[in-house]
Amino acid sequence: MLKNRILAKKPKEEELKRRLKEAREKLLALQMRIKEHRLPVLVLLEGWGTSGKGSTIGQVIRNIDPRFFKVASMELIREEDKRKPFLWRYFTEIPESGKFVFMDSGWMDEVTRDRLAGTMDDGTYEARIAGIRRFERQLTDNGYLVMKFFLHISEKEQKKRMDILKKDIDTRWRVSQADRWQNQHYERCLDIFDRYLDATDSPAVPWYVVDAGSKKWAELQVLEILTEGIDIAMQNQALAVPVLQNVFPLIKMPKLSEVSLEGKMLEEADYKKELKKLQSHLGELHNRLYRKKVPVIIAYEGWDAAGKGGNIRRITEALDPRGFEVHPIASPEPHEKARHYLWRFYTRLPRTGHIAVFDRTWYGRVMVERLEGFCSENDWKRAYNEINEFEKELSDWGAVIIKFWVHIDKETQLERFTQRQNTPEKQWKITEEDWRNREKWDAYERAVDEMIQKTSTVYAPWHILESVDKRYARIQALNILIKELEKVL
Amino acid sequence: MLKNRILAKKPKEEELKRRLKEAREKLLALQMRIKEHRLPVLVLLEGWGTSGKGSTIGQVIRNIDPRFFKVASMELIREEDKRKPFLWRYFTEIPESGKFVFMDSGWMDEVTRDRLAGTMDDGTYEARIAGIRRFERQLTDNGYLVMKFFLHISEKEQKKRMDILKKDIDTRWRVSQADRWQNQHYERCLDIFDRYLDATDSPAVPWYVVDAGSKKWAELQVLEILTEGIDIAMQNQALAVPVLQNVFPLIKMPKLSEVSLEGKMLEEADYKKELKKLQSHLGELHNRLYRKKVPVIIAYEGWDAAGKGGNIRRITEALDPRGFEVHPIASPEPHEKARHYLWRFYTRLPRTGHIAVFDRTWYGRVMVERLEGFCSENDWKRAYNEINEFEKELSDWGAVIIKFWVHIDKETQLERFTQRQNTPEKQWKITEEDWRNREKWDAYERAVDEMIQKTSTVYAPWHILESVDKRYARIQALNILIKELEKVL
Repeated sequence: MLKNRILAKKPKEEELKRRLKEAREKLLALQMRIKEHRLPVLVLLEGWGTSGKGSTIGQVIRNIDPRFFKVASMELIREEDKRKPFLWRYFTEIPESGKFVFMDSGWMDEVTRDRLAGTMDDGTYEARIAGIRRFERQLTDNGYLVMKFFLHISEKEQKKRMDILKKDIDTRWRVSQADRWQNQHYERCLDIFDRYLDATDSPAVPWYVVDAGSKKWAELQVLEILTEGIDIAMQNQALAVPVLQNVFPLIKMPKLSEVSLEGKMLEEADYKKELKKLQSHLGELHNRLYRKKVPVIIAYEGWDAAGKGGNIRRITEALDPRGFEVHPIASPEPHEKARHYLWRFYTRLPRTGHIAVFDRTWYGRVMVERLEGFCSENDWKRAYNEINEFEKELSDWGAVIIKFWVHIDKETQLERFTQRQNTPEKQWKITEEDWRNREKWDAYERAVDEMIQKTSTVYAPWHILESVDKRYARIQALNILIKELEKVL
Repeated sequence: MLKNRILAKKPKEEELKRRLKEAREKLLALQMRIKEHRLPVLVLLEGWGTSGKGSTIGQVIRNIDPRFFKVASMELIREEDKRKPFLWRYFTEIPESGKFVFMDSGWMDEVTRDRLAGTMDDGTYEARIAGIRRFERQLTDNGYLVMKFFLHISEKEQKKRMDILKKDIDTRWRVSQADRWQNQHYERCLDIFDRYLDATDSPAVPWYVVDAGSKKWAELQVLEILTEGIDIAMQNQALAVPVLQNVFPLIKMPKLSEVSLEGKMLEEADYKKELKKLQSHLGELHNRLYRKKVPVIIAYEGWDAAGKGGNIRRITEALDPRGFEVHPIASPEPHEKARHYLWRFYTRLPRTGHIAVFDRTWYGRVMVERLEGFCSENDWKRAYNEINEFEKELSDWGAVIIKFWVHIDKETQLERFTQRQNTPEKQWKITEEDWRNREKWDAYERAVDEMIQKTSTVYAPWHILESVDKRYARIQALNILIKELEKVL
């Protein structure tokens, strides 16, 4: 029961004042340490209508320099949000390192509201809960402090507050229809809230139920719990996080060395004929996808000079330009580096009915970042599971996820590099770095093998494109794409 | 839904055979590495009646040297078990480092059975689930690998198996009444099982639902998942674990330096009179406790020479010797060191209606082990929460937990040490170590302060006994004990 979760009893007025002063000073002092430690802090305030979420945030932020925090009011769900995965609007709002984000209601509010309205079935609810648990755990695993508060007031107290607000013409607007509904169905809400708190209470991101019967007391509880949480998070910051065992169904994939590249080629004439036919078919499918509002994510990875660019072009040529976007992925910008590594992909997700093509992807984490030491061993080892979870979220949203590894052998790469080097108009395509990467071919091959083995889930499998003959690989990509899209249409 | 949780599809016979051979060899090879790594492995097999839990364990252990594993059949709950906390029979069976324990059904079976029988109310169920989640997390945090398998078969398959078993007089006994009941109420069981799996699925200790429709296939799934789990656990072994923020209601306690020891004394005559009265009262209460089957745990910690022994004696003198035990706690034995540090206290818990007095306790973790470096910093920092969780489990069981810190000042200790040194019959009571510890008084005081602050929960608070006058402290202890016991009688 919600009220049994409240941790402490309201102290006497004098003690309350003294502790409030102490806690405020502590937060003031901590903000600079958070900055030094580059700790990102996400504070979520959920709770009953009129429990004072907004005003509590208002009090707490008085002790923080405005450069170090952002308040995100998440109650209003925009049309745009509905065309993105459920967690999108929260994931894109996560703080950067060294800063606070305070959310005035969040994913709990959204889920329980739909649940109470009866517009969410059991299956969706369970998937949401699983997704939320993974989201919160991933943030913590990646160095975030996530503090969840639920501001609790009794049915009577809520009624009283609404009556007072309603009496005054200047405050009447603050009592929403949702608040009134809540008060009329208090017991039912209580049950739904309780279940939600149970399902999403985890050791690293527990719920803190705050007695919000008095404003100052609510502020004190939030301040004391928050500052203790920051202290502990700074102590935990240096720790590596256990790698989790896979829990998603995987497809058994061959190693790259087992993939035969022999004889996978097409004659020019056959290629042209086939290409035209497939592109026209894909164009049709794109229309149907758009009408059916199915989002599609196409991820391209592959060896340098394997022919990714040309392959992508053969696909996009077939698409209505209003319905797709290509995202070339380079090294992350500073503001991207300051957040969870999947953040810059979350922000680039398509709307429903649209196609996003990624030219290089989040798999950089387990390839270049792994091999060049841009992240820790613990980071990339955890990433297989984190990526499977990310793609699960996309799949739950209804997205079709198609991942291509554009494959050539070492000799073919050498030929193409040499040709680029010797052809003036192609020289820009070849850099010192390409040659350096080539020297690490074997290490990359081991990393790619591991990646393909560990992330070929049934909902987002890898497809290996044999691209010694680029034409062959293009036709192969189109065929796979069409086959996968037809499954959902 | 249970059947949707199954990770993989049964491969063709030939592939199954090949993989089975590989997986068996892998486990055979891993057992020595487990021993070297000192990894304790707890494998829990739950599942439907006739799903083949026993025979699967039988197959798996063929690949392990008998010195390295133990099979614990947990189905039968003895009278003794019922007089202990719920988790007691599982906690006491955990493996020592470098070894396997296979449990043939366990805490899931016990909880869901009671739930299905309708003998467990919602509140108890929720407390059980919370306790189980803490138990599994604590094992993992303390370096255990815990693998949970649920062997799933369909209603039809279960029926078929029971019919076959029933036909033969030699196998008829293997179909229990519970199995029959399960099959008749398959859907209801499914629902209860599903809820349980949901509630206890955690990232570090996930559920693996095994398709148990075929024996060999079930064995392969268990072997493959188990060996992968071992691989990953060995990689994770060196990692420190995040310290969790407190989620239990705490009582605000003074620092030792704020405790006044002045004038806390009693005249001989007053003491004797009071002692007699209180001991006789305590004796009565002990009888009522016994009849009401309330378990009592009294934990003593304090400075060397503070008077713990004499204090304990004044309590036990009042008790019926058939109803209490005193556990003097020294350094752990090798077989105790090889397990979770709370194991040796779990094994010493009283039966319901009995009193256990611990002369030194599990708080050694955050005092001597912390200060002498017998455990890592990460270990003792985590221990505050682990101990609060341990005591919560005892409190949920219905135990009264009373914790005494027997307090004196540094000068009093010096006087008593010197007196012991100079009195031949008391010299055995004073060792070099006592003098060494005394030099670390300030560090100990900081550790004790932190311990008292962080582990004075409302359900198991600390009581500071002012023991400069030992008589005063004894009367104080008796008064506190009587007051706390009367609350539950």
